[in-house]
Amino acid sequence: MLDKNRLFPAESASRAVAAKLYETVRDLPIISPHGHTDPQWFADNQPFPNPTALFIQPDHYIFRMLYSQGISLESLGIPQVDGKQSADPREVWRLFARNYFLFRGTPTRLWIDFAFAEQFGLKERLSAENADEYYDAIDKKLRTPEFLPRALYERFNLEVIATTDAAVDSLEHHRKIKASGWKGRVLPTFRPDAVVDAEYLGFQDNLKKLGEVSGEDISSWKGYLSALRKRRAFFKENGATATDHGHLTAMTADLSLNEATALYERIYTGKTNPGDVELFQAQMLTEMAGMSVEDGLTMQLHPGAIRNHNPHVYEKFGRDKGADIPSPTEYVRSLRPLLSKYGNEPGFTFILFTLDESTFSRELAPLAGHYPCLRLGPPWWFHDSPEGMTRFREQATETAGFYNTVGFNDDTRAFLSIPARHDVARRIDCAFLGKLVAEHRLDESEAFELAQDLTVNLVRKAYKL
Amino acid sequence: MLDKNRLFPAESASRAVAAKLYETVRDLPIISPHGHTDPQWFADNQPFPNPTALFIQPDHYIFRMLYSQGISLESLGIPQVDGKQSADPREVWRLFARNYFLFRGTPTRLWIDFAFAEQFGLKERLSAENADEYYDAIDKKLRTPEFLPRALYERFNLEVIATTDAAVDSLEHHRKIKASGWKGRVLPTFRPDAVVDAEYLGFQDNLKKLGEVSGEDISSWKGYLSALRKRRAFFKENGATATDHGHLTAMTADLSLNEATALYERIYTGKTNPGDVELFQAQMLTEMAGMSVEDGLTMQLHPGAIRNHNPHVYEKFGRDKGADIPSPTEYVRSLRPLLSKYGNEPGFTFILFTLDESTFSRELAPLAGHYPCLRLGPPWWFHDSPEGMTRFREQATETAGFYNTVGFNDDTRAFLSIPARHDVARRIDCAFLGKLVAEHRLDESEAFELAQDLTVNLVRKAYKL
Amino acid sequence: MLDKNRLFPAESASRAVAAKLYETVRDLPIISPHGHTDPQWFADNQPFPNPTALFIQPDHYIFRMLYSQGISLESLGIPQVDGKQSADPREVWRLFARNYFLFRGTPTRLWIDFAFAEQFGLKERLSAENADEYYDAIDKKLRTPEFLPRALYERFNLEVIATTDAAVDSLEHHRKIKASGWKGRVLPTFRPDAVVDAEYLGFQDNLKKLGEVSGEDISSWKGYLSALRKRRAFFKENGATATDHGHLTAMTADLSLNEATALYERIYTGKTNPGDVELFQAQMLTEMAGMSVEDGLTMQLHPGAIRNHNPHVYEKFGRDKGADIPSPTEYVRSLRPLLSKYGNEPGFTFILFTLDESTFSRELAPLAGHYPCLRLGPPWWFHDSPEGMTRFREQATETAGFYNTVGFNDDTRAFLSIPARHDVARRIDCAFLGKLVAEHRLDESEAFELAQDLTVNLVRKAYKL
Repeated sequence: MLDKNRLFPAESASRAVAAKLYETVRDLPIISPHGHTDPQWFADNQPFPNPTALFIQPDHYIFRMLYSQGISLESLGIPQVDGKQSADPREVWRLFARNYFLFRGTPTRLWIDFAFAEQFGLKERLSAENADEYYDAIDKKLRTPEFLPRALYERFNLEVIATTDAAVDSLEHHRKIKASGWKGRVLPTFRPDAVVDAEYLGFQDNLKKLGEVSGEDISSWKGYLSALRKRRAFFKENGATATDHGHLTAMTADLSLNEATALYERIYTGKTNPGDVELFQAQMLTEMAGMSVEDGLTMQLHPGAIRNHNPHVYEKFGRDKGADIPSPTEYVRSLRPLLSKYGNEPGFTFILFTLDESTFSRELAPLAGHYPCLRLGPPWWFHDSPEGMTRFREQATETAGFYNTVGFNDDTRAFLSIPARHDVARRIDCAFLGKLVAEHRLDESEAFELAQDLTVNLVRKAYKL
Repeated sequence: MLDKNRLFPAESASRAVAAKLYETVRDLPIISPHGHTDPQWFADNQPFPNPTALFIQPDHYIFRMLYSQGISLESLGIPQVDGKQSADPREVWRLFARNYFLFRGTPTRLWIDFAFAEQFGLKERLSAENADEYYDAIDKKLRTPEFLPRALYERFNLEVIATTDAAVDSLEHHRKIKASGWKGRVLPTFRPDAVVDAEYLGFQDNLKKLGEVSGEDISSWKGYLSALRKRRAFFKENGATATDHGHLTAMTADLSLNEATALYERIYTGKTNPGDVELFQAQMLTEMAGMSVEDGLTMQLHPGAIRNHNPHVYEKFGRDKGADIPSPTEYVRSLRPLLSKYGNEPGFTFILFTLDESTFSRELAPLAGHYPCLRLGPPWWFHDSPEGMTRFREQATETAGFYNTVGFNDDTRAFLSIPARHDVARRIDCAFLGKLVAEHRLDESEAFELAQDLTVNLVRKAYKL
Repeated sequence: MLDKNRLFPAESASRAVAAKLYETVRDLPIISPHGHTDPQWFADNQPFPNPTALFIQPDHYIFRMLYSQGISLESLGIPQVDGKQSADPREVWRLFARNYFLFRGTPTRLWIDFAFAEQFGLKERLSAENADEYYDAIDKKLRTPEFLPRALYERFNLEVIATTDAAVDSLEHHRKIKASGWKGRVLPTFRPDAVVDAEYLGFQDNLKKLGEVSGEDISSWKGYLSALRKRRAFFKENGATATDHGHLTAMTADLSLNEATALYERIYTGKTNPGDVELFQAQMLTEMAGMSVEDGLTMQLHPGAIRNHNPHVYEKFGRDKGADIPSPTEYVRSLRPLLSKYGNEPGFTFILFTLDESTFSRELAPLAGHYPCLRLGPPWWFHDSPEGMTRFREQATETAGFYNTVGFNDDTRAFLSIPARHDVARRIDCAFLGKLVAEHRLDESEAFELAQDLTVNLVRKAYKL
């Protein structure tokens, strides 16, 4: 099912180089600096419940495709806002198996086939016929010690994995992991969206909680900033090396102290003017950049997703149900206030992501090829795919070079897919380098160096790991 | 002139698979669910007048390219608004032949070479030298029974062909075809632009006519909607399975009954406020979607063309003279009102097209990979080409999969080019699949299934044919 | 270091055709219709000072990449606004050599390797180890007669080179060259940005100077236009065949005489309303097009760069320091006023460039494939690269054809890179044609013709050289 040359160019000269390069990176440790696994898994080290709960229900790539073809989320057992969830796991699995052909040509198919073959030894393509056999085989393995979270971490050859955590999080699971003496490195990432976006669900409560956990008076701009500074320090003490910011746009602002103070007052009291919510987020990106200059945490920006586009799905099933849709994203004017203030600061690392591929050659590579602080994150979400990665390299490299990029992010809550995702990225990078060598645009010796850099060196440097 | 491996990848492993796949789809019937052929051809079954009238004068791809290189539309015999048209057909043909080199690298060249070789047995490239020989050979064949419209329909192995017809059309030609007993399936498509776009030429007269043919009082919002409902039913009785909507943008709206009633009053009386014309079109897309939910007609949206960009050409020669130019098109916010209302309706099929390729990976594939009603139309107009089709598959498949697409549309009024256009589409799909197989991203057995699906199964399902 | 098949496709059938095509264009003369070399070089024919001053300090591609990786512009000896510049040339060279790996995968690397190998006979990749050896070898050659500017012009097989010159320029160097009897053709290009953009540094002084050199009263709209007409005539007398316009957007306008007169009054007196500066530039594009219709100068438009994005760099180092960043650029609505007025004029040639690649297939190719005046300039600046050129051909050819393009521009102030840049363009065009032939989309005999056209014929015609 998994050909050893998969994802390499069909053309033989390029393929030969790609395969040689891949041999040298295949077994390197996995460094996962950005993702959404649950730290409690590693803290408690309990078995995963069943194949459906592991593979299907947490993976929006899977259920969004099934939903697009008329399969209801109820029938897939996706948990509902009111707590209902009735589907039988085995029935859901059969439904998935019958429709597995829908994933032809998608990265989901690559990831899942890899997990089936490499982790469960299942080598025949999943189908209606073998659905039960698959279910039973996986279910059985999940009850073995080899499939407990910590064992999988080790088996996957993970060197470090970062989670994503709310600014007010107690980091109890991270602390429990550390206290346990287990040698796995599971690091938190500081994600303050819920206390920065005034339209976030429960924003006022989140602010209150921020005040409580930090011991600061968050009714004033100064106290609010102090609270965030303290939380960042707390995250850093617990191993964090980075922050992450999910915004609708890349807009930044650089307000005067008086303006910012007045704006926060309106946000805090909920008496906002039109545009205030977006302006506050814009100002906060610049504030966060300033704090990164101070404390050295690497800053990540993920803009451009319109969240919860489908109100029917949102009302019944809540957030993160495959109904987030990208939109055109502007960077050059939007980032100027932040970059004018901090763009030339030594030691500041600011990693940009995009869902709008038209910006790679037009905006992102030119920006990253100039500003010392900027680095380009890998292709994200819908573009974390063979074609997406290839376009990224083709469109960004000539202007930004390889050395303004930061290696791969798996960005996933689907733990079992992590080795597969990194394997795809390594193969596509080797394929790209192989083609450059075959076209005499790069020496083979340079390609070997680059393969190492793209797999482990650049990510370690950018995320200070 | 036509190599049997044309359009397949040069690389031998991919090519071998592509060629094998193509063998299995080459002779499948042609299903043409969207195009602009004239139903009168099939109703009356009269011979086409001459080579120039058949190949050059109805084909905006051809005369726009010649015009761009300084060849006047007058000298090509393009009919003028005032009825003038003086060029001698043979002289026009010679002018075309002398400039045939201009089409190198364009799809027009592929289509025309195919028609020359496959339908007229002309195997030497058209040039100044053989222009007369070509003209005479084609002219002679056009007078034979084998080149009458119905004979060509059969010879082309057409299974069904849809035309595009105004909402007020009598469908007399379609009825005549049916009454004739001829077994060809020539179906109308409901296209209401002329009674929905208040800036359309003769809009007020079109509304009046709509009232007459439907027997409804179109002075009220309610009567106007009833008239449209009746016309849709009339089209459906006469074989229509789809509607088509050509709009400047993809904007949709979901107004309250009071708002919509008042808006229609302003539109009907011509006393519009700024933005009303666009808002009315936006509201009408949502109304049309609602009627599709009721009557089951598949809905198609073709947004993004700025019509009649060149006033000089428009004044002298009128519409559709190669001076329509695409513009950036937004889908995600624009379609939200319609999708929020009807996006999750079972049985509703809504096919999106674009002239803005940057939306494939950013907006269209993510939308189609979530909403049950959405499907992606094939690359349209300027992008109906080998590179355009390849980009579409590369940019849409990883997120939308193959099964949220709907096969090929020829979208043409150039009847002779239909087999060529479908042949190009089949070759490029096989080329794409061949590359996936050669790169071990798809099994060969799956590629054979997909080749059938992309050629006949998906189009039959999406258009209910 | 330079493989003879570099940049050709790895696939052997395509490569074989590409290599044969390249043989026929490799030694054709270089025609450079657009660039930024200094005419004084050819007028005075003095040696270039040293390797660093020749290769590094004038080349923003080089120092922007080094800066993006944290290397200060001071340490590279980039001249500062206050006149300071202290870095030792040899130390700068060593710094460059140590960091030469950063350019892997970029066109800069291709250009520089070519210059090292072909012009200086240096065949080992530049590195920290051989930095001094390189420096000494280049430095020594620069003192020989073979490396004086005129000798290099001849050695590079230049047929003609155009410079870019302010509207008020005396063209003294061009006149000196002509008077010298030397047979090299160094032609000026009329670039009026500094007297058209009211936000240009020293705009009021520039206007005053324009009045002086033309002998016109530029306090009135009429006098201002007369002054520009006279300057164009002066440029034309001194060999110019083209004008060039660098604007933030592609916006054009077609104001009435009264509106334009009033607008100029506001611009001239500095009492502008919001939007006036942009509107004036928009109107001036249409005026310049009208003058091109009169005097036959080919018009070039380069829109879309946000200049001096980094205020820190701008304040200390001034313009053109690698901190210009592209932004989304709209053409279809923007150019309509100009094209409505002059788009169908016989003999008018208007060449469009872009930094926004999403416009190639969406806007530029459809426009150029219709309007007789329009031609597409080659991929520009960040897109003057193997992948950029390939995308241009893939995205523009199917709609605009090859014959609405104008060959290659090197657009450089890095004189030594000119042969390398033209060599890359020739190789990529041959690679593109080779692939079309191998995929049976073009006959080999046509590809040989096209290779000549793309290399010399189209540029001669478009620029009237």
